[in-house]
Amino acid sequence: MIELRRIKHCRACGTPVGYKVPDDDNRERAVCPACGLIHYENPLNVVGTVPVWGEQVLLCRRAIEPRHGFWTLPAGFMELGETVEDGARRETVEEAGANIELQDLFTMISVVRVGQVHLFYRARMTDTTLDPGPETLEARLFHEHEVPWDQIAFRTVKETLQHYFACRRAGSYPLQCSSI
Amino acid sequence: MIELRRIKHCRACGTPVGYKVPDDDNRERAVCPACGLIHYENPLNVVGTVPVWGEQVLLCRRAIEPRHGFWTLPAGFMELGETVEDGARRETVEEAGANIELQDLFTMISVVRVGQVHLFYRARMTDTTLDPGPETLEARLFHEHEVPWDQIAFRTVKETLQHYFACRRAGSYPLQCSSI
Ligand SMILES: [Zn+2]
Ligand SMILES: [Zn+2]
Repeated sequence: MIELRRIKHCRACGTPVGYKVPDDDNRERAVCPACGLIHYENPLNVVGTVPVWGEQVLLCRRAIEPRHGFWTLPAGFMELGETVEDGARRETVEEAGANIELQDLFTMISVVRVGQVHLFYRARMTDTTLDPGPETLEARLFHEHEVPWDQIAFRTVKETLQHYFACRRAGSYPLQCSSI
Repeated sequence: MIELRRIKHCRACGTPVGYKVPDDDNRERAVCPACGLIHYENPLNVVGTVPVWGEQVLLCRRAIEPRHGFWTLPAGFMELGETVEDGARRETVEEAGANIELQDLFTMISVVRVGQVHLFYRARMTDTTLDPGPETLEARLFHEHEVPWDQIAFRTVKETLQHYFACRRAGSYPLQCSSI
């Protein structure tokens, strides 16, 4: 859930902030009574891939909370200094150590309750090398009938996988924009 | 430009932060020496529309800095509590007072230098009502040959408009993902 009013102190000067609607604004923000700084909080992007090898997709079993031990697609928070595509590639390397060619944007799902947007790209694995990082217990390839649907870590991952297998049957891969 | 190390104090307790790479991380973050809170900074989404009425597109002349007096598509920072699509619709209402039906995602441009992702949707205007808000000096419809190309506020707006007119000539509107 979005944690409201989690900013207690000004990031510039350390003074306790007050919450009010600034002039020419229509939302409550944390405003510093000493230096006047307005603190904005906005949704963040989580970026990742659907890595595909032939008929199989790559999933990673999480070594970290939340959802330790559950399966996910490689994904994580987009960082400053990178493009959306850079971030999706980086997470695939960090979490799975897979070699991929990034393809088109495939799902964009707004997760309103937590203030996130999840963006997944299709990716073609160029070989079956895997080298999971510290956030991953194991990484492996799954045929559709092997996917552990009741052990998928996040709803956006489940929806992205469902969309992927439906698209593969249909033979085309349109972008799905949705929200949960 | 991305302002580095702009967090000086902990948002939870006000203590001056130090910059270091946390365990199990590979980037420098602002870390509070008193309460241990790690402060992450990530790219933000700017969401907007290309509102279309027949052969014309809607542009707004900015009443605020940066780029006061220059022309833009309606767009602004995505807010907590909304979807990407909600945000694009909201900005179109706030800045232009236009009535629209949102169509497909049309451009997604990573603006790495400032830590932003700009997302524009095509939108069909349902009438020619306009009611510009306080951030807009004037809003008006432009045919392609009337667009003030040397007075466009932002490069992502210019690229989105160029992509729009090229797509209209071609008769199809694929998503363009790019970066600047
Ligand atoms: Zn302050
Ligand atoms: Zn602290």
